[in-house]
Amino acid sequence: MNGKEFGKLLEAIRTERPMVHHITNYVTVNDCANITMCIGAAPVMAHSADEVSEMVSMAGALVLNIGTLDAAQIEAMLIAGKRANELGIPVVLDPVGAGATRLRTSSARKLISDLKLALIKGNAGEVATLAGEEASVRGVDSMSVKKDILGIVSKFAAKLGTTVAITGKTDIVSDGKSTLLVDNGHPLMSSFSGSGCMVASLCGAFAAVSGDRLKSTVAALAAFGISGENAAKKAKGPYSFRAALFDAVAALTPAELARKAKVREA
Amino acid sequence: MNGKEFGKLLEAIRTERPMVHHITNYVTVNDCANITMCIGAAPVMAHSADEVSEMVSMAGALVLNIGTLDAAQIEAMLIAGKRANELGIPVVLDPVGAGATRLRTSSARKLISDLKLALIKGNAGEVATLAGEEASVRGVDSMSVKKDILGIVSKFAAKLGTTVAITGKTDIVSDGKSTLLVDNGHPLMSSFSGSGCMVASLCGAFAAVSGDRLKSTVAALAAFGISGENAAKKAKGPYSFRAALFDAVAALTPAELARKAKVREA
Amino acid sequence: MNGKEFGKLLEAIRTERPMVHHITNYVTVNDCANITMCIGAAPVMAHSADEVSEMVSMAGALVLNIGTLDAAQIEAMLIAGKRANELGIPVVLDPVGAGATRLRTSSARKLISDLKLALIKGNAGEVATLAGEEASVRGVDSMSVKKDILGIVSKFAAKLGTTVAITGKTDIVSDGKSTLLVDNGHPLMSSFSGSGCMVASLCGAFAAVSGDRLKSTVAALAAFGISGENAAKKAKGPYSFRAALFDAVAALTPAELARKAKVREA
Repeated sequence: MNGKEFGKLLEAIRTERPMVHHITNYVTVNDCANITMCIGAAPVMAHSADEVSEMVSMAGALVLNIGTLDAAQIEAMLIAGKRANELGIPVVLDPVGAGATRLRTSSARKLISDLKLALIKGNAGEVATLAGEEASVRGVDSMSVKKDILGIVSKFAAKLGTTVAITGKTDIVSDGKSTLLVDNGHPLMSSFSGSGCMVASLCGAFAAVSGDRLKSTVAALAAFGISGENAAKKAKGPYSFRAALFDAVAALTPAELARKAKVREA
Repeated sequence: MNGKEFGKLLEAIRTERPMVHHITNYVTVNDCANITMCIGAAPVMAHSADEVSEMVSMAGALVLNIGTLDAAQIEAMLIAGKRANELGIPVVLDPVGAGATRLRTSSARKLISDLKLALIKGNAGEVATLAGEEASVRGVDSMSVKKDILGIVSKFAAKLGTTVAITGKTDIVSDGKSTLLVDNGHPLMSSFSGSGCMVASLCGAFAAVSGDRLKSTVAALAAFGISGENAAKKAKGPYSFRAALFDAVAALTPAELARKAKVREA
Repeated sequence: MNGKEFGKLLEAIRTERPMVHHITNYVTVNDCANITMCIGAAPVMAHSADEVSEMVSMAGALVLNIGTLDAAQIEAMLIAGKRANELGIPVVLDPVGAGATRLRTSSARKLISDLKLALIKGNAGEVATLAGEEASVRGVDSMSVKKDILGIVSKFAAKLGTTVAITGKTDIVSDGKSTLLVDNGHPLMSSFSGSGCMVASLCGAFAAVSGDRLKSTVAALAAFGISGENAAKKAKGPYSFRAALFDAVAALTPAELARKAKVREA
């Protein structure tokens, strides 16, 4: 897997402008819409059980984010997700806060068991919780990638037959067979609200143009990380960094993505 | 109709600070609130069926936007809209996504049939769908205004006895008798999420200070377009353009609006 | 009470990173999340009755904001608030729009009567309405602090046994015994949507690190006001001011807060 392939996916997004249907939280939903447009795709947000099945039918990808979940939203996610599965549309799950409350953990588990997911993307705590191994994740956001985290991600991906990604200083992506690490990014990316949600939108946009989940996910994470590196050059604080990040995603070229992506095998 | 009249409306907004009650989507609601303040009016967002009737009674205009609709929201829109009709408060409808799902199309139709609307503002696809002529709108966002679109808008406005606006490179506004075109704007206005919602808020603010719907709508579209032209001068990308657009709306003077408005008969 | 004590609270927030659980409106919720991160705390938004009790148990403070209330949200606020009371977690109420509709006034009254609040923070109209003295508040946002407002705040705080704050050009904070005035701030702070919501989040963050409600509230208001003064230096309009305000809150040091806080007795 080399950088040129990532560049081609970005090119495809900008040519095809796939629709990315989000059922997501009301905190960062505007950021998800704008980052989706900045990468070159077309965001749609729709949550009513009365329309999600019809809306997702037109989409290139479906992004489910449980950041501000409730019973009605989970029901809509299941309806949309099942329709997406029928149509072969990739479904990305961001299990925000899994492990924090029983509602979040059980809802994420329900989505994982009832849907065929293309990608589960979370932080270390969320993914470890869902993998049933929360005890081992303390301190995971530290400098080095711990070996046990790599094992958790890889085993969990193999068990589910899906791709699993943990974002952090070094991002980890595994499909159960190969595990890749992405070293792009900048510390300011965790200084504002919503960067995790935004990258899930990008994962959806890249999944819409490639059947290779490992590649599309790694490309999305690298694209976001490189944009963060570029945005940091002019930022005066967390919020001006955040604003510059949107522009940087829009300005990222396929060639730059190909050249700057730092992807290695675990 | 000349530019000075538009300037006077902007002056009136800043003097009277009309309240603009929004029942709108959760994606761009913050943008609607801020653009309403930047033009000089006072935004209020309230969606509960338990208070919308009371809230709208204090408003200068009501803006209904179905961008993230569900059954409860449509019910609240009907309650607020009927009360606004009783009190002679202008109601602006932004039928976001009409044509994309049955829920959106039928909800927009229900609002149109049950309420007396001051203005329906959408893109070409949405308006043509509601006018029952979706077949003819493909490619409408291209460089030139197609004659059949002008006919659709004008006939639809005449049939409903309301004002209808289609936004795009050239905006079209018709009350069924006169049809006007607004040439202000900038390509970056379609590069971020929410510009359609934001201009609906401005249409509400202008409608609150004038009983002439054709004039108030054209003034709002020109004000937003000129602000876009001004914002583009310093933008480095879609998101910095978006940020500059808010400041540009706040900085727009009545004299500048009068001078730069590019309005012509169709 | 001197500035150094405020600086110590800011230091404590950045060391302890308390979680601030918000049940708030969908208009400014992203701003609340980001300003909470900028001050150094950790925002969580969760509104489902199925999880708020569990979520608030992990929080350092609970912020309740009725800006876009409905029946389900008020029910969740009562559940979360009662659990917070049991655990001794401070609860901040922002009664947005109390006085504007019966739903808002009665909901705010219900929250006040059923919960033990650490702080009620509103504008003059909201607080006077809840204190049952709306007649006297006209013109309260003018240059000078009116004596009767000071009396209303102090009496209301004494009656409820809580701390009450009115924000405006000069902020007023009283616990019924002492009444303090904060003179920090900038006129641009009322030029955009959400500054009232944002400062409620800061009040929550400061309350999480101090049992002295008068001190934590005054410190939060001063921190926000000083940040506004700093942000105004580079702003070109309401929206660039708003963006700079987030960065300014993040850049504010304990020493600067201590030095620039303008707090005096009423």
